[in-house]
Amino acid sequence: MFAQRLKDVQVAVQAALDQAVARLPEGALREAMGYALSGGKRLRAFLVLESAALYGIAPAAAMPAAAAVEALHAYSLVHDDMPCMDDDALRRGQPTVHVKWDEATAVLAGDALQTLAFELLCAPELGAAEHRLALVARLAKASGAEGMVYGQALDIAAETAPAPLTLAEITRLQAGKTGALISFSAEAGALIAGADPGPLAAYARALGLAFQIADDILDVEGDAALVGKQLGKDAEAGKATFVSLLGLEGARTRAQELIDEAEAALAPFGDRAEILRQAARFVIARET
Amino acid sequence: MFAQRLKDVQVAVQAALDQAVARLPEGALREAMGYALSGGKRLRAFLVLESAALYGIAPAAAMPAAAAVEALHAYSLVHDDMPCMDDDALRRGQPTVHVKWDEATAVLAGDALQTLAFELLCAPELGAAEHRLALVARLAKASGAEGMVYGQALDIAAETAPAPLTLAEITRLQAGKTGALISFSAEAGALIAGADPGPLAAYARALGLAFQIADDILDVEGDAALVGKQLGKDAEAGKATFVSLLGLEGARTRAQELIDEAEAALAPFGDRAEILRQAARFVIARET
Repeated sequence: MFAQRLKDVQVAVQAALDQAVARLPEGALREAMGYALSGGKRLRAFLVLESAALYGIAPAAAMPAAAAVEALHAYSLVHDDMPCMDDDALRRGQPTVHVKWDEATAVLAGDALQTLAFELLCAPELGAAEHRLALVARLAKASGAEGMVYGQALDIAAETAPAPLTLAEITRLQAGKTGALISFSAEAGALIAGADPGPLAAYARALGLAFQIADDILDVEGDAALVGKQLGKDAEAGKATFVSLLGLEGARTRAQELIDEAEAALAPFGDRAEILRQAARFVIARET
Repeated sequence: MFAQRLKDVQVAVQAALDQAVARLPEGALREAMGYALSGGKRLRAFLVLESAALYGIAPAAAMPAAAAVEALHAYSLVHDDMPCMDDDALRRGQPTVHVKWDEATAVLAGDALQTLAFELLCAPELGAAEHRLALVARLAKASGAEGMVYGQALDIAAETAPAPLTLAEITRLQAGKTGALISFSAEAGALIAGADPGPLAAYARALGLAFQIADDILDVEGDAALVGKQLGKDAEAGKATFVSLLGLEGARTRAQELIDEAEAALAPFGDRAEILRQAARFVIARET
């Protein structure tokens, strides 16, 4: 059920993103944006659409928000891959944007993808202006200097820090770097419906942290061909990760605890949240 | 009258920006954002506040939009100054962000400044949710892959083009690179008031183009100490500018025609638009 639904989301959100990019003026900028928007797990889009479904919002009505969070995520990857940041040449098994084009195009494509995310949240399909504005405010909070970019800045600072990060520090870093956008995604359905996002926030917090622990585990024991990017970079760079701090078994146990926590947070929704429970289990079982 | 009003705007918008940055978590990211937000002519903020005044909107009620456009402008400068883009070491007489910090901080500070711009447009002071959402949509259109970033991409492409740009091409480039954000600024007042931005759009289009022609003239005959950045780079790089295409006198004449056009577009507003007429004259008389 979950795997099929995720595949359906991948197809539908790709179509929405392709349509958004097709409206833009031709040129290298548009090409690079379309390239950066291709592929990916689409877990964030899935969370938007499934949290919306919990509130009776049809996929078509939530789609611009699902596309928006994927555009925001894509921008962060393009900039994060740049030589002055993580310096990655490969992403999802393909050359990164600055390798395929150049650094200037990577800066600009990332910039325009962020803008596109906010533009998509203005789409009339998303309903009342107040709800769309709440999505804009929430995405800004999640992705800016208090959220995702803050986490990335902490990550950069950690590279030159005199000592490896502590568990508390790395938890704060990851809450920004990956957790904030996952939280936005899971809360989006409530915001589109004009409901209190509280009940989904606890689910999202646990899920986001489990997601990052799973990423750290994959970095150690994943299959580079499946993951589609260079692995083992963190260990090589002597960076603290959940695995270096908790050990491989400790990290697995902690991830499982968080998934149990995420599932428990869904209790108020009963059976209707079954697919979100499956998503939580997927997050720590995935191979990519 | 105009000079004093511009000074008042500079003080007020700086205070609003300082306050927005002070709310962020401490660290190099926040420092770099505050640094990038310091100084500048604040012409865009001025246009927001004065266009708002035309519709009876008080400065305090329009201030978040004025701060937003300056945050957006600051982000574009931080990224534009990077080595892979224009490679400028000096901005407003001070080291650029990637020189004072590093390239990673410049990427992230620019990214977070863009986010901050959209966050500021959600401020309740700006009134009805529909009007705030209209501002978000208009800023996205003006600054993304159809507006400012599109113009920057055309500028980058021009560097490796086989022939210098034609007048039509450079007009299209500048309409995006500098014109789109000036248009947003001048139309913002109408959007905050929920009015048709049409009457201000014609003023803004002519003003934006005149602004860029004046920039090209300054690049040739400005005083580097006053302007606060390296001059003559375009001529040195063999890039087409309004001056290289029209000659110095031709460029001056064209700028004056555009200012006359901008002033004429304000006729429906009568005497109440006098300060916007003065702003238009300032744009081509400025020394920085």
